[in-house]
Amino acid sequence: MRALVIGGAGFIGSHLCDSLLELGHKVGCLDNFSLGTKENIKHLSERKDFILYEADASERKKLRGVFQDFHPDYVFHLAANSDIQASAVNPDVEYRNTYTTTFEILSAMRECGVKKMFFASTSAVYGDKRDIELDENTPGLAPISYYGAAKLGSEGLISAFSYMNDIQSLVFRFPNVIGSRLTHGVIYDFIERLKKEPEHLRILGDGKQTKPYIYVLDLVRAVIQFMETGNQGVTLYNIGVEGDTSVTRIADTICKEMGLKDVSYEYTGGEGGWKGDVPRFRYCLDKIHEAGWKAEYSSDEAVRKTVQEVLKES
Amino acid sequence: MRALVIGGAGFIGSHLCDSLLELGHKVGCLDNFSLGTKENIKHLSERKDFILYEADASERKKLRGVFQDFHPDYVFHLAANSDIQASAVNPDVEYRNTYTTTFEILSAMRECGVKKMFFASTSAVYGDKRDIELDENTPGLAPISYYGAAKLGSEGLISAFSYMNDIQSLVFRFPNVIGSRLTHGVIYDFIERLKKEPEHLRILGDGKQTKPYIYVLDLVRAVIQFMETGNQGVTLYNIGVEGDTSVTRIADTICKEMGLKDVSYEYTGGEGGWKGDVPRFRYCLDKIHEAGWKAEYSSDEAVRKTVQEVLKES
Repeated sequence: MRALVIGGAGFIGSHLCDSLLELGHKVGCLDNFSLGTKENIKHLSERKDFILYEADASERKKLRGVFQDFHPDYVFHLAANSDIQASAVNPDVEYRNTYTTTFEILSAMRECGVKKMFFASTSAVYGDKRDIELDENTPGLAPISYYGAAKLGSEGLISAFSYMNDIQSLVFRFPNVIGSRLTHGVIYDFIERLKKEPEHLRILGDGKQTKPYIYVLDLVRAVIQFMETGNQGVTLYNIGVEGDTSVTRIADTICKEMGLKDVSYEYTGGEGGWKGDVPRFRYCLDKIHEAGWKAEYSSDEAVRKTVQEVLKES
Repeated sequence: MRALVIGGAGFIGSHLCDSLLELGHKVGCLDNFSLGTKENIKHLSERKDFILYEADASERKKLRGVFQDFHPDYVFHLAANSDIQASAVNPDVEYRNTYTTTFEILSAMRECGVKKMFFASTSAVYGDKRDIELDENTPGLAPISYYGAAKLGSEGLISAFSYMNDIQSLVFRFPNVIGSRLTHGVIYDFIERLKKEPEHLRILGDGKQTKPYIYVLDLVRAVIQFMETGNQGVTLYNIGVEGDTSVTRIADTICKEMGLKDVSYEYTGGEGGWKGDVPRFRYCLDKIHEAGWKAEYSSDEAVRKTVQEVLKES
């Protein structure tokens, strides 16, 4: 199969490229390197079954050129802003990098007759529903971040384009995803800051923000397992793990793995890390478990493993 | 109050301008005249409490200029593509006229500190759920038209911008809206075509597409009644009427009102009028009824009244 991974040099995208190549697929990797890095895909650069396209998926002409050159059978759409704090102060980032990329990718698929896609959605589409277990049919989707809004809008586009153009779409609503090649987020930030200043750590919020963290290779395995839906229209799963991890627990794990003792934590206070941050959520995972996938690593295990890998990489 | 009606020269927007002026509000009317007409607001042009801005709400600089000139307290956002058949062949229309207008309007409100808005959403956000009665909490929103997708995306944006910027938003999911000043849609089209060719009428689909039609002034009355929500975030209502009307019944009503007999109907066949058309839907109206609003005209009555008015106007 000819798989076009858009956002393929990013944290999750680059792991997906690895897995698709291992399975014998030909991979086109499109990235604008706004968050993705050359480093993430350096080990693939010599392969003949890997083609790199440096382009922005929101630019129609360039994107069409890539479609016409690569002729994908399958599009994996992981191009989005993933730095939610950044877009909280500048919603334009989500309009361009998250919604417009989706619109342009679907328009290119429509024009070029590509009939299969995967889309990385998010728990943020639900909004703040901390008191209920979220399943795929939870009503009243009410995002509180521009990020969640742009992802919900993208899901709407995928629904309509899939119906209108007989496209088979797989959509996962991701929790927090972590693992090697992380470029930002709480684990990455804490490690960077503790390396500079090992006695003291500033923590946004009250440290009790508690979320499920999934290990990136668990997630990529699920994408591969379900990518051929065989169903017209959208197939949607919440994807997640056993348990969850608080921000303070993450800090503790990092200090332990770095061999730091008596680090003083300074909490900025408040429930969320920033406005638009959902401090807690829980997923019902029955649908994906019954379909035959389960994460290997729990949330705490994923955090520990990621800390070890990020420390090794840095 | 200073009310900015975006799409204010359109079919619904112009009636809303009338009602707001009657209530003593100062009205700014912004329109790009893509679907709106000068005719719809001609009767207001001499008023000192009415200012017309000819601009496109998707153009940031011009929109900001209007906000800075008019200083609205309240924004009524009715700027959107409403010709769903047109966007079915060109999804760009929805991206620009429906989604981007919403994004730019919310961005302008954010920048200029406007804290109240109304948004015209649609039953199309639900997708094809013909077998259930749709209430505001019906899960699994899955639009099958680009129009429905762009409106769902807009709802997501309104949710996030309202939360992030303490905006009070009122969102109605409209059914089919009809009345004087119609510019397109099944009633308008049938009348135009029967005037040219009174013996014969071509009807898209099987004529059994059956939807609730609301009379425009019933709808405007609801907007006025609920516009001050008093609640932070989004207040959402399905708005509709008693009963529904099939396309064939509309054709019969028009023929009767035009005094035409023995018109031969030619059905193009199939359930929907076009791909992406939801052939039937039913609303649960408990929420808006319990809040104290009810339509004066049933669907059939709204159709008859509209036919009479459109015939008089044309």
